[in-house]
Amino acid sequence: MSGRLVGVGVGPGDPELLTLKAVRALQEADVIAHFAKAGQASHAYTSAQQFLPADAVDCPLLYPVTTELPADSAEYRSQIDGFFDRSAIRLAEHLDAGRVVAVLSEGDPLFFGSYMHVHMRLRMRYPVEVIPGVSAMSAAWSAAGTAMVRGDQPLTVIPGTIPEGALAERLRRREATVIMKVGRNLGKIRRALIASERLSEAIYVERVSMAEQSVARLADKPDDHAPYFAMVLICAPWRQ
Amino acid sequence: MSGRLVGVGVGPGDPELLTLKAVRALQEADVIAHFAKAGQASHAYTSAQQFLPADAVDCPLLYPVTTELPADSAEYRSQIDGFFDRSAIRLAEHLDAGRVVAVLSEGDPLFFGSYMHVHMRLRMRYPVEVIPGVSAMSAAWSAAGTAMVRGDQPLTVIPGTIPEGALAERLRRREATVIMKVGRNLGKIRRALIASERLSEAIYVERVSMAEQSVARLADKPDDHAPYFAMVLICAPWRQ
Repeated sequence: MSGRLVGVGVGPGDPELLTLKAVRALQEADVIAHFAKAGQASHAYTSAQQFLPADAVDCPLLYPVTTELPADSAEYRSQIDGFFDRSAIRLAEHLDAGRVVAVLSEGDPLFFGSYMHVHMRLRMRYPVEVIPGVSAMSAAWSAAGTAMVRGDQPLTVIPGTIPEGALAERLRRREATVIMKVGRNLGKIRRALIASERLSEAIYVERVSMAEQSVARLADKPDDHAPYFAMVLICAPWRQ
Repeated sequence: MSGRLVGVGVGPGDPELLTLKAVRALQEADVIAHFAKAGQASHAYTSAQQFLPADAVDCPLLYPVTTELPADSAEYRSQIDGFFDRSAIRLAEHLDAGRVVAVLSEGDPLFFGSYMHVHMRLRMRYPVEVIPGVSAMSAAWSAAGTAMVRGDQPLTVIPGTIPEGALAERLRRREATVIMKVGRNLGKIRRALIASERLSEAIYVERVSMAEQSVARLADKPDDHAPYFAMVLICAPWRQ
């Protein structure tokens, strides 16, 4: 009898933002898998740590490369694809032994998360379950305390990794927009916001829901240093 | 001393998808406010019911009108704006009396929720806190078990209430798309998917995370009957 793969969304950082269902799934797991950079605990692991069963098998999946190579290079793609293949094989060994394998996923598992890469490789062969989590973007606009979209308004979510011209073009549509994966792209994002005349509307959110959380108008932030998980929000205009 | 307003995201329906923080906020509340149609408990109320303190003041906020008038008519706007004004006044009376007022919000409070209308009216006058929740769209793609966006891919979220031509135009961009507020718009949405040659990719999700949840290819659904909270997902293509 084979085991079960569970993608567990652990939310944006604050351990209190795990759902009751996520806590239960962790407590029922035989194996706790988590993606990390060698030598660093992931945010997901830190958020979930207090809920992990003491007797579960720890299964860290260590990225062979993160920012050392450009993400659009063939070498990066090859290394990272091989890594996800090997990770799926490691999880499959546990699943073949009948174990329940929980994979910790920061935020929401199928929304820009590493979990999806093992999920897509294993979902046809084993029972899988995905427990949705509070996304970092929901936590960001909640921290900013401002209405994001309502009524007929669309929302666009774009990674800050796309080219400056493409960013500016999307921003010119004047719709509510979330820019994810800010990190080293903040200078470029700022230029695209200036080019599209939307800098004054932009809210910068860093380390959302964690003790070091910071929320500010981007126009007031004096530098372009930002962690990878920072976000920029541009809300739809509010008119009562 | 004034009280505190707390917008509590209670998730998409399953009571287990409340966060630990939402449960604590409900248990600490003096007043439980919730939007509803007269004579009907809201999904948010049903999800949260088992966590509500027995001695809290119940404060239902009853919509004067829902689908009886077109949402873009002046009469609807006037009635609904007046309703949110009166709702904010009712909550302010509790806040002035020093009470902690929790407002139940289906999904995530500032993402297409009624809560934002009282939030925007009260946030300058009282301490406010927003507890993000698992959005219905996160629950929908988790139920479908399919990767939504990754890497450099953008995501567009559009309400199904917009005109057919605008829907089709957005769908032609061939990006990952979530269509919310499906309900009586499903026939129109289906036509826009056909016009943009994307019907074969569309996944229909109804009553997500509840006992009656249903997930199907939209092309396989034989009719255009759908509840208001149904969604249609069009994922980004997956290539390993």
